Amino acid sequence: MTLAWEHYFSQRALSMKASGIREFFKLTERPDIISFAGGFPGGAFFPAEMIRDQLQEILAEEASSALQYGPTEGCAPLRQYLAAKMTREGIAASSEDNILVTNGSQQGLDLLCKVLLNPGDAVLVEEPGYVGGLGAIHNYQGSFYPIAVDAEGLRTDLLERQLLALARQGKKAKLIYLVPNFQNPTGATLSLLRRVKILELAEKHDFLILEDNPYGELRYAGYPLPSMKSLDREGRVIYLGSFSKTFVPGIRLGWLLAEEALIHKMIAAKQGTDLCSNSLSQRLALACCTRGFIDDHVRSLVHRYREKRDLMLSAMERHFPGVCSWTRPQGGFFIWVTFPEPLEARDILIKALERKVAFVDGGGFYVNGRGKNTARFAFSEAGPEEISRGIETLGKILHEELERRGISEKYAGQAKKVS
Amino acid sequence: MTLAWEHYFSQRALSMKASGIREFFKLTERPDIISFAGGFPGGAFFPAEMIRDQLQEILAEEASSALQYGPTEGCAPLRQYLAAKMTREGIAASSEDNILVTNGSQQGLDLLCKVLLNPGDAVLVEEPGYVGGLGAIHNYQGSFYPIAVDAEGLRTDLLERQLLALARQGKKAKLIYLVPNFQNPTGATLSLLRRVKILELAEKHDFLILEDNPYGELRYAGYPLPSMKSLDREGRVIYLGSFSKTFVPGIRLGWLLAEEALIHKMIAAKQGTDLCSNSLSQRLALACCTRGFIDDHVRSLVHRYREKRDLMLSAMERHFPGVCSWTRPQGGFFIWVTFPEPLEARDILIKALERKVAFVDGGGFYVNGRGKNTARFAFSEAGPEEISRGIETLGKILHEELERRGISEKYAGQAKKVS
Repeated sequence: MTLAWEHYFSQRALSMKASGIREFFKLTERPDIISFAGGFPGGAFFPAEMIRDQLQEILAEEASSALQYGPTEGCAPLRQYLAAKMTREGIAASSEDNILVTNGSQQGLDLLCKVLLNPGDAVLVEEPGYVGGLGAIHNYQGSFYPIAVDAEGLRTDLLERQLLALARQGKKAKLIYLVPNFQNPTGATLSLLRRVKILELAEKHDFLILEDNPYGELRYAGYPLPSMKSLDREGRVIYLGSFSKTFVPGIRLGWLLAEEALIHKMIAAKQGTDLCSNSLSQRLALACCTRGFIDDHVRSLVHRYREKRDLMLSAMERHFPGVCSWTRPQGGFFIWVTFPEPLEARDILIKALERKVAFVDGGGFYVNGRGKNTARFAFSEAGPEEISRGIETLGKILHEELERRGISEKYAGQAKKVS
Repeated sequence: MTLAWEHYFSQRALSMKASGIREFFKLTERPDIISFAGGFPGGAFFPAEMIRDQLQEILAEEASSALQYGPTEGCAPLRQYLAAKMTREGIAASSEDNILVTNGSQQGLDLLCKVLLNPGDAVLVEEPGYVGGLGAIHNYQGSFYPIAVDAEGLRTDLLERQLLALARQGKKAKLIYLVPNFQNPTGATLSLLRRVKILELAEKHDFLILEDNPYGELRYAGYPLPSMKSLDREGRVIYLGSFSKTFVPGIRLGWLLAEEALIHKMIAAKQGTDLCSNSLSQRLALACCTRGFIDDHVRSLVHRYREKRDLMLSAMERHFPGVCSWTRPQGGFFIWVTFPEPLEARDILIKALERKVAFVDGGGFYVNGRGKNTARFAFSEAGPEEISRGIETLGKILHEELERRGISEKYAGQAKKVS
């Protein structure tokens, strides 16, 4: 006998569903598939030996604390390290009291939504935007107000228009969720002018800014831009950092920087959520940080990911029909591909999977069913040889598809590269 | 400049506050304090070498998956192991699909409240009850209906009366939260008759049962009772397990067993909460489980914690005034002490801290400000010599306090042991 669970679920749970994208990852984990699907860091790049050595030392010297419960807010020396790191990066973190260590930066998103969102609160989001961020907001019943992203990030003209429309209805936005550097999924970086404009709008229209920066340190071209948090005069920006891309994701470790009053509230929320973050992960990250290993590792990652990015871009150049367009990210993991409109990413994906290549249908990154002809390609996980072979295979499929439909001519010349 | 954060907080966040008990733990972490405060496992009992060896092997052989993101629901072989373990313990888990691996069992509590509770939903809780469970429920704005606990656990006569009172108001309880074995904070074990009675009432009044069992394997006397889940005919019971007490808490690992439809919804909720649990922790626990190390370890823990329990009980017998009463738990970590009414635990605690001994004021385990003359003593973390010395010091303080108030005679003879 089974209970009729829908009678027991909360209002917020009724509309929760597992992300199609994440469910799909399971398919792509088969070893015979070349996967550009998951936004996973390259497993071959993990510093396994360094981690082994550090864990050995930690367990020999401080096992009884490294395996014990720890403070909810995170272990003090790690918070101090992170406060100092943020200060070096131009963010005036006054102290460790501005830092909350989280169980991956996804937990930061969840806790923020928990302490900030009432059902129906208006949340401005990038479109297309990061599935995990959208999921956290959805789970606390925030109302999405999607703002289109172009090559310079979120379009501030559309943002301003949306804010005015809300104001006319007597409504206010509670917050905006942004991935300013090498955005997931488009790879776009928010321009400095737009960063400043968004801050101005936030002050004028009184909303908070959630700056999610998991990829910021992985820049392969151009110069770093100041973070939104470093430009913040009123404490409106909440900054989310992560060890998942610069170190390893499996230890689930991120952090959040914000005003102390908000951190306090989030500590109360985190107590009821998981008591504390993983003590062993925190000691490991701390050891690798303070000894400079992670900074060294990031420098090597930048070279290695840049090679992969370049490889994928040049393979697309060689193999993709002229009617496709794609982004040229300055960092991060993702290239965003737009197929000519009659082609749907889902159809291409089905054919690609038959030939053992996977990417992600872009539709899942849109709030309202748009983006059917878009796709996200991650160059982070697949090896160099796989990248070349996979893109070549996809190129063939795309050519065949265009030919089969007799539309290659019709759309030729419409393509344009977005850089 | 600082924002007026109370204007931005969600409704649920406005009443969240950090648990006084947990804040207090920070005080007790000073090495010169003998602490009976935290419900922490003994750090000296952690199998650090076993963990070191297993991590070495995992990182040598499968680093690229052990450090990568994993499936939201948990790694498949660990779920299979846990399903089989539950079946061995009398719970017919049909398969791994009934298991969700969580970031500590506290996350199980949080996710359950997330998918089950609407603001104002009636939740039946033990009084006194576990702070973390109460916190998770409070954070999702459940309404508490406290039911008193005695030496045989939750009083089912009072439960029935409460259910009828609710029914008369046209209301229903959504769920009951129970720690049936060696309850936190009283150490009481729910009798078999009451287990059966609660299940009957759940079927009759249509509520769910949350069975939280972190201490069940740590039994020092008497015989194991069937879990609520093993007696469940309708799928109403949701079982929470934990590696924190039988293995180590710092790796944050627990699990949840329930009907597949609920597990599915919780996977969707967990995606937005933290993407997945710690991959390295899961591999470590799996290796230690499948090789039988954890079962062996639990057997040795039972002996060692039993010694500590006996030591604390006999020290209380020797040193505590006859007007105090305390429980004699058959397992777990906690002894619950009741001081004679005019003595408040908070006053005793202040004097105890001056003499470097800590315990927890029992008031925090009550929903409505009761229990001022109660206290929780954990025997799990302190060493044997500390237990003897700490209880002796407290005995002196209690005798002094009674004498100072001239009330030792008045209350003599009122004490009674609760076993």
